[in-house]
Amino acid sequence: MATPTFETITLDVEDGVAILTLNRPDKLNAFNTQMMKEMIACFDHTDANDDIKAVIITGSGRAFCAGADLSAGAATFDYDSQGGEALAARKQDGVQRDGGGLLTLRIYDSLKPVIGAINGAAVGIGVTMQLAMDIRLASTAAKFGFVFSRRGINPEAASSWFLPRLVGVQTALEWCYTGRIFPAQEALDKGLVRSVHEPDDLLPAAKALAREIVDNTAPVSIAITRQLIWRMAGANHPMEAHRADSRGIHARGKMADAKEGVVSFLEKRPARYPDKVSTDVPDIWSEHWQAPTFK
Amino acid sequence: MATPTFETITLDVEDGVAILTLNRPDKLNAFNTQMMKEMIACFDHTDANDDIKAVIITGSGRAFCAGADLSAGAATFDYDSQGGEALAARKQDGVQRDGGGLLTLRIYDSLKPVIGAINGAAVGIGVTMQLAMDIRLASTAAKFGFVFSRRGINPEAASSWFLPRLVGVQTALEWCYTGRIFPAQEALDKGLVRSVHEPDDLLPAAKALAREIVDNTAPVSIAITRQLIWRMAGANHPMEAHRADSRGIHARGKMADAKEGVVSFLEKRPARYPDKVSTDVPDIWSEHWQAPTFK
Amino acid sequence: MATPTFETITLDVEDGVAILTLNRPDKLNAFNTQMMKEMIACFDHTDANDDIKAVIITGSGRAFCAGADLSAGAATFDYDSQGGEALAARKQDGVQRDGGGLLTLRIYDSLKPVIGAINGAAVGIGVTMQLAMDIRLASTAAKFGFVFSRRGINPEAASSWFLPRLVGVQTALEWCYTGRIFPAQEALDKGLVRSVHEPDDLLPAAKALAREIVDNTAPVSIAITRQLIWRMAGANHPMEAHRADSRGIHARGKMADAKEGVVSFLEKRPARYPDKVSTDVPDIWSEHWQAPTFK
Repeated sequence: MATPTFETITLDVEDGVAILTLNRPDKLNAFNTQMMKEMIACFDHTDANDDIKAVIITGSGRAFCAGADLSAGAATFDYDSQGGEALAARKQDGVQRDGGGLLTLRIYDSLKPVIGAINGAAVGIGVTMQLAMDIRLASTAAKFGFVFSRRGINPEAASSWFLPRLVGVQTALEWCYTGRIFPAQEALDKGLVRSVHEPDDLLPAAKALAREIVDNTAPVSIAITRQLIWRMAGANHPMEAHRADSRGIHARGKMADAKEGVVSFLEKRPARYPDKVSTDVPDIWSEHWQAPTFK
Repeated sequence: MATPTFETITLDVEDGVAILTLNRPDKLNAFNTQMMKEMIACFDHTDANDDIKAVIITGSGRAFCAGADLSAGAATFDYDSQGGEALAARKQDGVQRDGGGLLTLRIYDSLKPVIGAINGAAVGIGVTMQLAMDIRLASTAAKFGFVFSRRGINPEAASSWFLPRLVGVQTALEWCYTGRIFPAQEALDKGLVRSVHEPDDLLPAAKALAREIVDNTAPVSIAITRQLIWRMAGANHPMEAHRADSRGIHARGKMADAKEGVVSFLEKRPARYPDKVSTDVPDIWSEHWQAPTFK
Repeated sequence: MATPTFETITLDVEDGVAILTLNRPDKLNAFNTQMMKEMIACFDHTDANDDIKAVIITGSGRAFCAGADLSAGAATFDYDSQGGEALAARKQDGVQRDGGGLLTLRIYDSLKPVIGAINGAAVGIGVTMQLAMDIRLASTAAKFGFVFSRRGINPEAASSWFLPRLVGVQTALEWCYTGRIFPAQEALDKGLVRSVHEPDDLLPAAKALAREIVDNTAPVSIAITRQLIWRMAGANHPMEAHRADSRGIHARGKMADAKEGVVSFLEKRPARYPDKVSTDVPDIWSEHWQAPTFK
C-alpha cells in the first residue's frame, strides 16, 4: 500500500512505525481546515495498512502546534461567516461540528497505538488533539496551554471528556480556567505526559516505545486492547467490559495468534503473530455496545 | 445587586471575588440545616450577580467545618424523629434527601468557579462538601476525615461520585473504610488538595488564583467550561462532549467575546470581554443532555 | 459458621479477618477452573458470615499468581476445544464467559473490604484479579505484567473497566500494549498498589490495615460504603449517588449503629456496633439502580 502524500503534514513509515509530522513550521504548525482533513485521512491509511503497527505524531520546527490558525482574525471561530471550505468541512446533516472533535474522535477510533512526541509549544487544539492519543512523551522544550477562556470560546475537541480522565477534575479545571501556559515538568507531574526528554532524545524515545510494542505483541490484540480500554474508560459497570472481553477471549482463544502466543512462550522464543488487523479483528461489540452518533 | 446577609455564614465581595465564610466558630463551624439553606441561597446569589466572577469558601476560626452538628445526640441523623425544620428542609415530593447532597449538587451547578481555602479541621460533611468545589487549597493546619463508618452511617453528599474522580477508587475506599483523620500533606499527595500553604498564606494564595482567572478570562467561557468538565467527567463517550462543545464553539464563535479574545491576543493587549453570564450563556445542552432528577 | 475447605486455596479466619491464600505453590499459584470456582465460593462464604469483617488475599510460596495455567498448551484459551469442566464452568445461557471476569465481578459485589497482599509475581489473571480488590499492598518481591498482547489474546477479567480507574488511561494503555513485566516500585508510582513493604512486613501490614477497619467501624456502614464507591465510580452524574446515599442516611440514621456511633463519639469511648451485614444492610438501590446482566 503506497504511502500517501499531504500538504500540511508528512507521513513516513519505517519498519512498521508511521511518523505523522505536522508540517507548517513557518506557521508554528497552526491547525487549519486542511490539516484537520489530512490528519483524518492519514488515520484512515494507518488503520487500513497492515504494515503500520504504531503511529507517532510530532511537529516540524520549534512548535508542536500553536493552535488554531488565527489568520481570519475576529472571524476565526465564526465559520458561518467564513463559509467556503472551513464551513463545509464542519457541517454534517445541517449541524456545525467542531473540527478538533472530528479529529479526536477519529483518533479515538484508531486501530493502531498512537504516541505523541511533543517537541515544542502545544496550545489550544495543539494540546487538545493530544488527549485522544494513547501515550504522550514531551521535550523539555514543550509547553502547554488550554487557552480557550482567554479567547472567549470554550474547550473543544471533546477535551472535557478526555482531560479529566488523564489528570483529574481539579487539574483539568485549573488549566482550563486560568488558560495559563505551563511547562513540560508540570505536564509530567500532573500526568498529562508520561515522560520528559532532552529535545534530541524525544523522537528516539518515542520510537523505542513503539518498537517495544511492535516487536513483542500481536497487532490484532493491540487493536482490541485499544478499543477495550478507551471504551470502558467511560462505561458505567465492569459488566460492560466483561461482555466485550469474554467475546474477545472466545474469538481470539481459537485463533492462530493465541496458539502462537502460548507456544512461543513455552518454547522461550520470539513469537510471530499471523493474524492481521485488516481482516482478523473479531466483532466483540455489535451485540451489546453502540458508538453514539452526533445529534 | 446588594450582597445578602446570613446568620451561619458571611459573604464578602471584593473586586469580582466572593468569599463565603462558614461562621459558627464557637461550634467549629458545625453544619446544620440553616447553614445548608444559607449556603444554597448564597450560590443562587453568586450565580445571578455578574459582578461576582469567582467564589472562595473558607472557615472562620480554627476549623473549616467539624462536620454535622451533633447537638441532637443519638437522633442526629434521624430526621424523621427530629421533625420540624430539619425534616422539612430535606423532604421533597415525599422522599427524604440528604442535606449534604442538596448542597453539593447546588455547587455542582454553579456558574462561577469555586475555590476551597481549607483553613483547619474538615470532617464528615466538612470534607464531603469540598468535593464539589473546583480547586482546593489547604493550610498546613488542615486535617480531613471521612468518618461516616465510625458514626454508623455512610458517605453522603454524593461523595461516592466525587471522591473516586479526585483521588481514585483505592484511596477513596481506604479513607472511607478507616474513617481516619489525615493531615494536609496526605491530602496533597493523593490529589485531594492542589497545594498546601502556611496558615497566613492560605487566603492570599486562594485570592491570587481567583484573580488569575478573573483578570484574564471571559466569564461566559468559564461558565461553559465548568459545565463541560463536570458533566463530561461522568459521560460515557467523547461524542457527548463533542455534541456540547460543537454547539459551544458555534454559538460563542460569533459572539463579542470570541472576537475580542482573538483580536486582543493579536494586538497583544489585555482583553475586555463584554458578554455576561446572566444573559449570554448559550444553551448547548438541552437537545442532547438532561440533568437527572431525584427519584 | 464453619470455615469451608478448598483444594486450590486456603481460608483462615482470625479475629474477624479472613485470609484467602492461593495455594498451588509448585505451579506458582497458576489460575485454573477449579481455583476460579473456589475463589467465588469463598466470597459467598465471607459475605454470609458476620464473623468475617475483612478479607485479605495473598499467595503461597514465591509467586502471587503466575497467570493462567498453560498446561493445555496451544489450546489454553480455546475452551470449546477443551470441553469438560473448563467449558462448562464458563458457559451460561449458551454464551461463553471469561473466567477471570466471573471472579472479578464476584469480588466487585463483595460486602466485605478486600485487601490484596501481593507477595510475588502477578501476571495475566494474576494481576487483573487484583483490580476488583479495594486496596493493594505489595512486597518488594512483587512484579506485575499485563501480558495478554504477548499471548495473542486481550485484557480480560473486566480489567479494561478497572485499570483506567486505578492508574489512568495513559498508564493502562502502556502496560497493556507493551505487556512488559514491571516492579513493585512502578506499581506504587502509578497508583496500582497503595504501599510497598519488605517481604516479611507485607502480611503484618495488610493485617494492621484490616484491623484498623474492623476495630473502629460499623460493618453495615462498610458494606454500604463499598457498594456506593464502586458503583458510583462508573456513574454518570452525582445525582445517582445522591439518590442512593440519601436512602442510606434515611435508613441508617434511625438504626442502632448510628445512635451508637454518635453517642460513643460524644462519650469518647470505643463504639460497639450491633447491626449485622447478614440481616441489616438496607436496600438503597432497587428503586433507581439495576445491576446489568450479561448479554
